[in-house]
Amino acid sequence: MSHGIMCFSQGTGGLKEDFKSSVLNQPGQEYPQVNSQGYARFRIQAPKADSVKVSLGLGGRGGTILTKGADGFWAGTTEGPMDEGFHYYNITIDGGKFNDPGALNFFGSTRWESGIEIPASDQDFYALKNVPHGNVQLILFPSASTKASRRAFVYTPPGYSTQLSKRYPVLYLQHGWGEDETAWMNQGRANLIMDNLIAEGKIKPFIIVNTYGMTNEIKWGGMKDFSIIPFQTVLIDELIPYVDANFRTIANQSQRAMAGLSMGGMETRTITLNKPDVFAYFGLLSGGLYAPADIKDKSKVKLIFLSCGSKESPDRIKEATGNLKNAGFNAVSFISPNTGHEFQTWRRSLYVLAPMLFKD
Amino acid sequence: MSHGIMCFSQGTGGLKEDFKSSVLNQPGQEYPQVNSQGYARFRIQAPKADSVKVSLGLGGRGGTILTKGADGFWAGTTEGPMDEGFHYYNITIDGGKFNDPGALNFFGSTRWESGIEIPASDQDFYALKNVPHGNVQLILFPSASTKASRRAFVYTPPGYSTQLSKRYPVLYLQHGWGEDETAWMNQGRANLIMDNLIAEGKIKPFIIVNTYGMTNEIKWGGMKDFSIIPFQTVLIDELIPYVDANFRTIANQSQRAMAGLSMGGMETRTITLNKPDVFAYFGLLSGGLYAPADIKDKSKVKLIFLSCGSKESPDRIKEATGNLKNAGFNAVSFISPNTGHEFQTWRRSLYVLAPMLFKD
Repeated sequence: MSHGIMCFSQGTGGLKEDFKSSVLNQPGQEYPQVNSQGYARFRIQAPKADSVKVSLGLGGRGGTILTKGADGFWAGTTEGPMDEGFHYYNITIDGGKFNDPGALNFFGSTRWESGIEIPASDQDFYALKNVPHGNVQLILFPSASTKASRRAFVYTPPGYSTQLSKRYPVLYLQHGWGEDETAWMNQGRANLIMDNLIAEGKIKPFIIVNTYGMTNEIKWGGMKDFSIIPFQTVLIDELIPYVDANFRTIANQSQRAMAGLSMGGMETRTITLNKPDVFAYFGLLSGGLYAPADIKDKSKVKLIFLSCGSKESPDRIKEATGNLKNAGFNAVSFISPNTGHEFQTWRRSLYVLAPMLFKD
Repeated sequence: MSHGIMCFSQGTGGLKEDFKSSVLNQPGQEYPQVNSQGYARFRIQAPKADSVKVSLGLGGRGGTILTKGADGFWAGTTEGPMDEGFHYYNITIDGGKFNDPGALNFFGSTRWESGIEIPASDQDFYALKNVPHGNVQLILFPSASTKASRRAFVYTPPGYSTQLSKRYPVLYLQHGWGEDETAWMNQGRANLIMDNLIAEGKIKPFIIVNTYGMTNEIKWGGMKDFSIIPFQTVLIDELIPYVDANFRTIANQSQRAMAGLSMGGMETRTITLNKPDVFAYFGLLSGGLYAPADIKDKSKVKLIFLSCGSKESPDRIKEATGNLKNAGFNAVSFISPNTGHEFQTWRRSLYVLAPMLFKD
């Protein structure tokens, strides 16, 4: 197999043969593997197949084509290093799309897909450590508007279950298009980011709630056909009252935040503007921006946080933040170094945003 | 495709063409489907494949071989009706084993496998209904013996989060070989079984705890090489104290039960005998039996529950229960009609066992 152009850009040493199993592999599975340079290597058993291709690879080059070995396994390595952090992928075998049996699955692109983790220089902030851990609670809340019991995940910080007189602020945190309410805790590692920040005393403990943003029925770019009302009704009229009744929240606007990634950012923007009395802290993670004129009552907004990856549109985010600051808003931007429209950008965004929330 | 012998056993009407998507399909996926007779139908896109086979089918016949259509999709129907309830399966494509992209995945056989649900005559008891719902909490508890933060799921009943002075008994409930701590809530639907029993006033609310039984490293039948000590240490010395410190339990033997399915039953049997002061209620679900001589102090045991499917060894279970009763134990057996060593047997077992627990 060819290691191509990107290999040489690593220096004369080329590809380092220090591959290890991805930390997101299924129990006992050796492949996929990653090396210290960020290359990924795949190995798939399909002895009678004619072609096996992995969707992951360098942008625009159409993924990684695997080569069949004498042992009936198809193998191959990405042409160059991948961005740090989490990536979704799938495998095309003889024209059909399947998951890699070696990897755990994560919900993205409207289905459970294979996931791989490229070790990052800053991976410590979302590592599972020997610190007190909060719980992630699956709740089923009644939704009259959709005539269903709907799912949400609620992160309650360490101490929540024993300090029974303490009440907490709440961040409502939304996934992107093609994802669901599992995204922030699974691929986002939001619970571990919180546990670590709390253990280091860097944040005031708060609750996080994730629910399904009802975005998977529409195609990316089809936002103009999307009505926010069904989700807004579920969130504002059903989920928030349920959470306030069943968890020890501080149930007022100044102790409530909303943030979302990508299409979840667009939902956050629309709902925070439609319902100015519900949230005081707003976060758009690779998910658009606010202009000063969007917001009618500046006094109700405690923070506007705008972020994206450096490979997205950082200038737009910085400019919007500058405009908001000039107009007197408490606005902060964060640009994730060397990442694009992927979960490493959003893990870092949560890590940066969390200490700014619920300051008083 | 052939519908074979079992089809005729359905009567002269043959196969009914009333197939509907399985309730365990991924969002928006039409296949796999099931009909009102319990047949399953599969449809897989792999236009250039040479052979596609589904592991599910009638016992001993090697699954269901799919046939390629002009549209590039492989399709086929099981030769006969499947047992009611949940089944694991996978798909072999050109010699490699993959999951069905249409179905959700469940952890069994040491990996995440496709799952399908055959509607059951008694499916109401584990249906998601408009009743108050308990929460399923993912906890990460410290384990010094394994030098890790370990995972467990804790079901807390409706009202747990608001009735802050109330304390609850606890059932420690174990999965089988090849499964993990996700099995009872995902494929077992234990939380919904509990919600429904509580809504009907049929049981006293209690907490359920599921953790990983450390059985996946050994092959089925390799029990003689399996040491119970590592898991027993995690359960007795680490998990139970953590749960008692972090949840509002009634922390004594008379309010603590242990049960398990298959290999989890063998673990239950061994641990309840090794540690007679920890649990008062014992349940073995398709997981062995106790003889009266096994138990040293009869006064400490409030209930012995033995169950299996009618297609397993019901006579052995009934005989053992009779022997225990004759020796003065409160022993109860349950035989699940028309099921084998599968989750429908264990869902029903939990449903029958729960009302017998924590009677005083």
